[in-house]
Amino acid sequence: MTSPVLTLTTDFGQADPYLAIMKGTILSIHPQVQLVDISHEIEPQDVAQAAFVIGTSYRYFPKGTVHLIVVDPGVGSHRRPIALATPEAYFVAPDNGLLSYILAEAGANPPPGAQAWAGERMPSLYLWALPQPLQAITLNNPRFWRQPLSATFHGRDIFAPVAAHLSKGTPLNELGEPIPSLLAFPPPRPEVMPDGSLLGHIVHVDHFGNLISDVTEDDLKSTKLTVEAGERHIEGLSRSYSEGGELLAIIGSSGRLEIAASNGSAAQALQLGKGDTIIVRTRKSY
Amino acid sequence: MTSPVLTLTTDFGQADPYLAIMKGTILSIHPQVQLVDISHEIEPQDVAQAAFVIGTSYRYFPKGTVHLIVVDPGVGSHRRPIALATPEAYFVAPDNGLLSYILAEAGANPPPGAQAWAGERMPSLYLWALPQPLQAITLNNPRFWRQPLSATFHGRDIFAPVAAHLSKGTPLNELGEPIPSLLAFPPPRPEVMPDGSLLGHIVHVDHFGNLISDVTEDDLKSTKLTVEAGERHIEGLSRSYSEGGELLAIIGSSGRLEIAASNGSAAQALQLGKGDTIIVRTRKSY
Amino acid sequence: MTSPVLTLTTDFGQADPYLAIMKGTILSIHPQVQLVDISHEIEPQDVAQAAFVIGTSYRYFPKGTVHLIVVDPGVGSHRRPIALATPEAYFVAPDNGLLSYILAEAGANPPPGAQAWAGERMPSLYLWALPQPLQAITLNNPRFWRQPLSATFHGRDIFAPVAAHLSKGTPLNELGEPIPSLLAFPPPRPEVMPDGSLLGHIVHVDHFGNLISDVTEDDLKSTKLTVEAGERHIEGLSRSYSEGGELLAIIGSSGRLEIAASNGSAAQALQLGKGDTIIVRTRKSY
Repeated sequence: MTSPVLTLTTDFGQADPYLAIMKGTILSIHPQVQLVDISHEIEPQDVAQAAFVIGTSYRYFPKGTVHLIVVDPGVGSHRRPIALATPEAYFVAPDNGLLSYILAEAGANPPPGAQAWAGERMPSLYLWALPQPLQAITLNNPRFWRQPLSATFHGRDIFAPVAAHLSKGTPLNELGEPIPSLLAFPPPRPEVMPDGSLLGHIVHVDHFGNLISDVTEDDLKSTKLTVEAGERHIEGLSRSYSEGGELLAIIGSSGRLEIAASNGSAAQALQLGKGDTIIVRTRKSY
Repeated sequence: MTSPVLTLTTDFGQADPYLAIMKGTILSIHPQVQLVDISHEIEPQDVAQAAFVIGTSYRYFPKGTVHLIVVDPGVGSHRRPIALATPEAYFVAPDNGLLSYILAEAGANPPPGAQAWAGERMPSLYLWALPQPLQAITLNNPRFWRQPLSATFHGRDIFAPVAAHLSKGTPLNELGEPIPSLLAFPPPRPEVMPDGSLLGHIVHVDHFGNLISDVTEDDLKSTKLTVEAGERHIEGLSRSYSEGGELLAIIGSSGRLEIAASNGSAAQALQLGKGDTIIVRTRKSY
Repeated sequence: MTSPVLTLTTDFGQADPYLAIMKGTILSIHPQVQLVDISHEIEPQDVAQAAFVIGTSYRYFPKGTVHLIVVDPGVGSHRRPIALATPEAYFVAPDNGLLSYILAEAGANPPPGAQAWAGERMPSLYLWALPQPLQAITLNNPRFWRQPLSATFHGRDIFAPVAAHLSKGTPLNELGEPIPSLLAFPPPRPEVMPDGSLLGHIVHVDHFGNLISDVTEDDLKSTKLTVEAGERHIEGLSRSYSEGGELLAIIGSSGRLEIAASNGSAAQALQLGKGDTIIVRTRKSY
């Protein structure tokens, strides 16, 4: 089955030739594919940020879309090139944690004792066993690679050609050998404190300066809450960005608690960023 | 009639997942559509800048192109989601002034007494009646929305799906109810001063630092003119950027008077920006 | 023969309407073409950088791809608009050196005595005679231009429409008259010093801060070498970015010697940039 859509997520920026070289390589194999950029402004080598971005985006694409993700600090070392098939989509990437949110959402679990990522630059990776119906392979069939293989640009030489062949309908098992587990980090989760409050983490700061946390709608027992962020206390949940005071707490479009500023950047107003923490207290009602 | 081309203009930047989420939503409904980015570097919530950018671009696209514009500071409040059909194109956007240049060019008029925008961040909006053959609807048919509807991302939940359905051939009147008027601001226009000179406004500063004004070729009675910009006087009109001295005045590609620097940024050289004014004097010939 | 792929390389940035205006113009002529952005972050008017970027990218695209390159400081002056056909691809651009790397790779030669570019902003241009089978034309058939022709935006009025017609299958010789030579600069090359060492030039600094030189793999007689860059000496060639110390020398993906930093930007660590020099010494083995 061919896939008309192939997305790209990288830390390449758009000033250099690298992204275009991958696109040209893909189109040389599958000229009819529709290429969609997810983001190329991932911070250089920031696997966790790329994992968040693809983890938040993929579910909105057509079933069977091929997602190519290349943030690859270990290129040329022993990290494996892999592909993952889920019921929704295909993913082609280095095996370095880029698919962590996707695995978690697809029902895979970290091994016992694994520490959740808490906003540091480089999360600790663990081998996650893949439950049915997930299938993964290591990309070890050089017939589908560009030759000669470089040690510096597997995006061009392995990942792009394999993604193009997948989107053209080549079956997964021709591209490499099955593997039972992938490296991933447990996505960040808020901690329940002894006093019942939640200690949440900022996992992303968006273009508007909104601070997006790991606290989800389901984690909140009440909308009567106080969020402590930086030195400020924000009372209650707003329903829209244009409502409420200068700073507001809101459930954002991906179902996560966000701190926003109605006329500007909450990140700037609060001097908070990725990895910082917030405290969410449910207000007692007497 | 299906439209092969759908353009996107937003203030989302390209680092976050938001733009990709809209594109995935569109492709899930209409996989064959050709997506074209107009700009995603509109300053956050700068409706006037987005109105200028789409107003300058749309006429170069194929007839029937669907233009999706999402700069939406009022998401979740009472502003209406709308679509507009002109003889040239379709536009899908919040009803907050984004289509002002398009309405003005299509022959609609502001109500008497409306103040033209003069470069401030937030222009004042007025209800403009739509003349024939313009048609507008409010997007109030939830059958074409993504469910559940969020209060924070109508780009994903209303505008993207409606634009995709329009490009796929769904008739306008199935997507919502007709409305007779839209909110818009009168585009900036130069003022004629008592001494006969023109007081123009800088409406856009481009990537090269060119200062683009609201003075059009038709406003100039002679090419024998002096432009006063900052503390500098520029004599005469140049025909090309590579002609003339350090600073030059020129009719740019959209028919507007621009101040340019032949080897650099006029904005930097003059320390001028959006909303600043220039004076254009036709030289007397004795 | 129609070409499904048309690439764009400009110094327009992506905030202004200019790029979208060219894309709309192309799609109005050839709606089925697949548009691919190579880069729009070329520094304003930096012909040499654009020449490097397209020269490094084009060979990865499908045979017959049309490459449109618009970095055009001389727009409206006497520089010629041109198209070049090679066995691999078509190129549409102003005749100002943008195709220098492509000509050099296709076997054309600069006239005797021409000085190689050595990293300055504006390289000196020379007329290069075109060997078989290269074919060039000057775009002097106004039937394929947008009318009225402006003096400020030939990207919209000449280059985009001609590129669209080429991709749609219009034969080269209908678009203009054959010309025997094009303006180009000799791409930078390392100099052999009296002591046998190589004096190389930094020709590009990429998004990761890697310093890419004009020294190629073939220029090196041994991997036992020392690279002197800034005030640092780097011993030996690394095989991958994750190997070696803080700073490393490596043959990058385009076959050029690069200086990289394993955890950051070599450009920042060494305070070096485009036009700076490095010295490569092959170590004597006693």
